Amino acid sequence: MMHRRVSVLGATGSVGSSTLALMDEAERAGTARFTVAALTGGRNIERLAEAARRWRPELVVTVWPELKADLEHALAGTGIAVAAGEAALIEAALQPADWIMAAIVGVAGLKSTWAAAGTGAIVGLANKESLVCCGPALMARATTAGGRILPVDSEHSAIHQVFPHERPEGVRKLVLTASGGPFRQTPASELEHVTPERAVAHPNWSMGAKISVDSATLANKGLEMIEAAWLFSMPEAKIDVVVHPESIIHSLVECVDGSTLAQMGPPDMRTPIAYALAWPKRMPWQAPPLDMVSLGRLTFEAPDTERFPALTLARQALRAGGAAPAIFNAANEVAALAFLDRRLAFLNIAAVIADTLEMASASDLVGGSGDACEAALAVDQEARRLARICLDRREQAA
Amino acid sequence: MMHRRVSVLGATGSVGSSTLALMDEAERAGTARFTVAALTGGRNIERLAEAARRWRPELVVTVWPELKADLEHALAGTGIAVAAGEAALIEAALQPADWIMAAIVGVAGLKSTWAAAGTGAIVGLANKESLVCCGPALMARATTAGGRILPVDSEHSAIHQVFPHERPEGVRKLVLTASGGPFRQTPASELEHVTPERAVAHPNWSMGAKISVDSATLANKGLEMIEAAWLFSMPEAKIDVVVHPESIIHSLVECVDGSTLAQMGPPDMRTPIAYALAWPKRMPWQAPPLDMVSLGRLTFEAPDTERFPALTLARQALRAGGAAPAIFNAANEVAALAFLDRRLAFLNIAAVIADTLEMASASDLVGGSGDACEAALAVDQEARRLARICLDRREQAA
Repeated sequence: MMHRRVSVLGATGSVGSSTLALMDEAERAGTARFTVAALTGGRNIERLAEAARRWRPELVVTVWPELKADLEHALAGTGIAVAAGEAALIEAALQPADWIMAAIVGVAGLKSTWAAAGTGAIVGLANKESLVCCGPALMARATTAGGRILPVDSEHSAIHQVFPHERPEGVRKLVLTASGGPFRQTPASELEHVTPERAVAHPNWSMGAKISVDSATLANKGLEMIEAAWLFSMPEAKIDVVVHPESIIHSLVECVDGSTLAQMGPPDMRTPIAYALAWPKRMPWQAPPLDMVSLGRLTFEAPDTERFPALTLARQALRAGGAAPAIFNAANEVAALAFLDRRLAFLNIAAVIADTLEMASASDLVGGSGDACEAALAVDQEARRLARICLDRREQAA
Repeated sequence: MMHRRVSVLGATGSVGSSTLALMDEAERAGTARFTVAALTGGRNIERLAEAARRWRPELVVTVWPELKADLEHALAGTGIAVAAGEAALIEAALQPADWIMAAIVGVAGLKSTWAAAGTGAIVGLANKESLVCCGPALMARATTAGGRILPVDSEHSAIHQVFPHERPEGVRKLVLTASGGPFRQTPASELEHVTPERAVAHPNWSMGAKISVDSATLANKGLEMIEAAWLFSMPEAKIDVVVHPESIIHSLVECVDGSTLAQMGPPDMRTPIAYALAWPKRMPWQAPPLDMVSLGRLTFEAPDTERFPALTLARQALRAGGAAPAIFNAANEVAALAFLDRRLAFLNIAAVIADTLEMASASDLVGGSGDACEAALAVDQEARRLARICLDRREQAA
């Protein structure tokens, strides 16, 4: 039976909660045992305390110092150590563990993911930004420490499941599948006027608002291309995107001998989480089977880079390398949030990204003198500043 | 660079020729080097001699003693050793080699495949009958000798490519895909009257007449279910069949964690041959890429066991075990050839299989006292005798 000592960074979010639920299911089924080193959360003290009471971690952390007292109160008498703030989050990431789920969303998760990757643990990576902003350094850091990064995104998990890790020279191409988002069939003329409400209505996955916008612009697929490049050491030219509206084939690996390998399944985040959690084994859970016959058919089409230029911009950023992927990410976030705030038209999200990349390139934006993580954070801050300038200009022009 | 010492049993047939062509392509591309130990063939002496002149094997064999002089004449002055007949075929299989392609079609390939599996070489297995008729013994023989069986059928190659060989407990189910054959959409009433000409017109693969009939009756998929059971140690209940008319997904492995892994590609036998030839590496060749976008869609439906009862009969034979799979195979061959001879109606192919299985069960047919290969050959002979009796009865009744 599998026995793992785990920490969950971002235990109260969607991925973190699902991780704990899968652990619970496995313990009940008698297929695995878990000891929890650390749990961290944000504002949802009630859920964090509940998880702490169930799992009895050695350390439980809320990122918000002002909520420390609430957390202490909620765990009074349990003997569980409570801490709060940025430094405590890093402390949690550094607790000795076999396996760490890095599930804090956004750039806020960068430092703790970086810390986790340095421990030599297996890191289940749901924090995209750390890969996008300092992917090569993060991968090297995990390898040097004797650990390993396991992607939790469904696309990258799919690739990881069929990728020939011992013989990567056998790979000709990675093919990321994309649902195409809510505007897959929306004419360009109509895209100008689409509202945030329409953008966040994703056809296959239920997600947060910002990532739903990323899915609608295909910026999300662009970020995933960048992630795939770092995770699997593949150049941009060997990464393709195909639109697959049913989201059943989660991605594919094309080999030099004419074989294409794929991982499939109903769209459910628990499958990539379970894969990372049990790797290199497989963990049974109440996963719905893939019923090909009731599906009936799977369809594929080319992504339209005319209507969704963010994909091309991401390719350019990936080819440029250096700080460009982090700039792409920061500019996209600023622009997507402005769209959700009704300050920016949908089609101008990509325009703001393009403007920012250009402005950053003109100012020769590079990271500071710290390690790759600090450099990425510095790039991120500066890129956001530039993006806001570009955003203001687009607003004034409108 | 890969360097392999190989033998090809059945070097002039479709699979054997493709194997040699792939070897040639790899040598020209500078990706591999091959030394050939032995080549064997049948009546096509010209092609066999041509292959021998190209590859300079230590031994070249025709199965037909009366053609030995022709072969000697064709290879005069080359210094290549020539032999003929059954014993020489076994001698060829026993030549020291790293890798042996067992591509002789039908029960005629059984003894040489059995011999090859005992050498400790990697055996690329295109001879279905040896797996169907003595699968468990064949697998055990290869393992004991320190060798390995690599399937060359596209379906089993697909499964082999994504199967977790180190951790088979992670598998919930194997799903074999079937094109559905030429009569996938033919109503039952019309099936009574279909001709051999219509039956051999396969939609996706170009194949011999007998195997095309097997594809039309789904007996072929039944045989593949039996092969999959022995190759991957899976019980009948864990093997499903789904009809997938485009033949792009070659088969699937469903895991306990909700992941389904698949191998895909344009229907081309060279891909499974290249996979077996280079395993555990991947061998580049001029393989056409899989273009999902031009494909547009993949479809799936349940197999109709009412119209195609051979599938159910194969399941019953697999569940019964012992001699039953060999009886299924022999009866199917007798019946399929009778259909091609216009002696039997299409729908009566399955009827003759069912009759034979029943008659064999009544007579408690089991193999003789030799090894598993000889026992299988004895079962095969006796089952053919019974099948011809059943065939005559059906003919008289018609």
